Amino acid sequence: MMRRQKTQKKGELIVLSGPSGVGKSTVIAELLSDRRDIYFSVSYTTRAPRVGEADGVNYNFVTREEFERMIRDHELLEFAEYVGNYYGTSLKVIQEKLEKGIDVLLDIEVQGAAKVRDKCPDAVFIFIVPPSLEELSRRLYNRNTDSSEVITRRLEKARQECRESVRYDYLVVNDTVMNAAREIGSILEAERCRVKKRVHLVESIIGAPCAPSGE
Amino acid sequence: MMRRQKTQKKGELIVLSGPSGVGKSTVIAELLSDRRDIYFSVSYTTRAPRVGEADGVNYNFVTREEFERMIRDHELLEFAEYVGNYYGTSLKVIQEKLEKGIDVLLDIEVQGAAKVRDKCPDAVFIFIVPPSLEELSRRLYNRNTDSSEVITRRLEKARQECRESVRYDYLVVNDTVMNAAREIGSILEAERCRVKKRVHLVESIIGAPCAPSGE
Repeated sequence: MMRRQKTQKKGELIVLSGPSGVGKSTVIAELLSDRRDIYFSVSYTTRAPRVGEADGVNYNFVTREEFERMIRDHELLEFAEYVGNYYGTSLKVIQEKLEKGIDVLLDIEVQGAAKVRDKCPDAVFIFIVPPSLEELSRRLYNRNTDSSEVITRRLEKARQECRESVRYDYLVVNDTVMNAAREIGSILEAERCRVKKRVHLVESIIGAPCAPSGE
Repeated sequence: MMRRQKTQKKGELIVLSGPSGVGKSTVIAELLSDRRDIYFSVSYTTRAPRVGEADGVNYNFVTREEFERMIRDHELLEFAEYVGNYYGTSLKVIQEKLEKGIDVLLDIEVQGAAKVRDKCPDAVFIFIVPPSLEELSRRLYNRNTDSSEVITRRLEKARQECRESVRYDYLVVNDTVMNAAREIGSILEAERCRVKKRVHLVESIIGAPCAPSGE
């Protein structure tokens, strides 16, 4: 048995978006259940924890003062304010993980993803869709948390968000959690095999620089 | 259980290259052992079968007249002449499979791959390298088919070919057959998830066109 060559590799930044109710959290939980090499980035927020939410798990709950300090100190990759509360992603934590070669997964909505795309064009962008809008509607009703009026609005928003999927690299259909998690796992493995991320490896094998790619 | 949406999808053309002795055949055999959805394209040649080679398995053995007819009728994706014998890939067979949505795998050396890249820029190009040149040398010696002089030439050729890997999309290290086959399997699955190949799927879900990608 041979050992894999150790190389100075950086982790991948993976951005996952998809409409509310599509089942992102369940798919992520399935994906992470047998992967210890992916760090799931927990967002920061100034809103109060809801019943059942734990600090550091669902969100990192911080004060408004602390959040504004993070903005001032450029510690956030992206942030937004909704209904009087801040929500954001810590750049500092992400960079630390990536430098250590750990892949970082962000669950972020389309506007936030657009900001990340501007700052980190090398990140991998994955969009999750439901198998149909009827199925999404069924899932939203089954959650039993929203009125039918709110669900109608969510469905219209979902339709708008899905149109943005063309700006992503990959599209995954959450027909079953297993399928969707397996596809995302394959995407992550494939992205690690990209030639541009492994040129140094070839160069160390042949002991010479590779041909320039445009040649 | 929901059924995956059936769509008019075309197969992927996958080009696999790597230096002689790297173990491509073994990796391909492992990959195909649990995949019925990939067609391995067998090359055409005018050279005589060697002991143990079977028509339609190692090569499709044809006469010089038949090969030249295929050239004239533009039935070949690429071909070359080595030491007085023709070697080539049938475009006709490949197109038939791709149209049926079947992925087609080509095992082809770097010059042939370059020709395919010109004709089929959408194909997926994977380069396989050995974990080290020492290991490649060991494998070539273990085959017990070449003199040490021939092996020295093969190693120098391998080094040159590896420099061409930057023109490929993915790089796979054949440290173990299982690892290499798993990585190639993931690459194929990930490529099927590319947004550009699934836009029609989103459009059928939302019943509307997606936003243009450059918008």
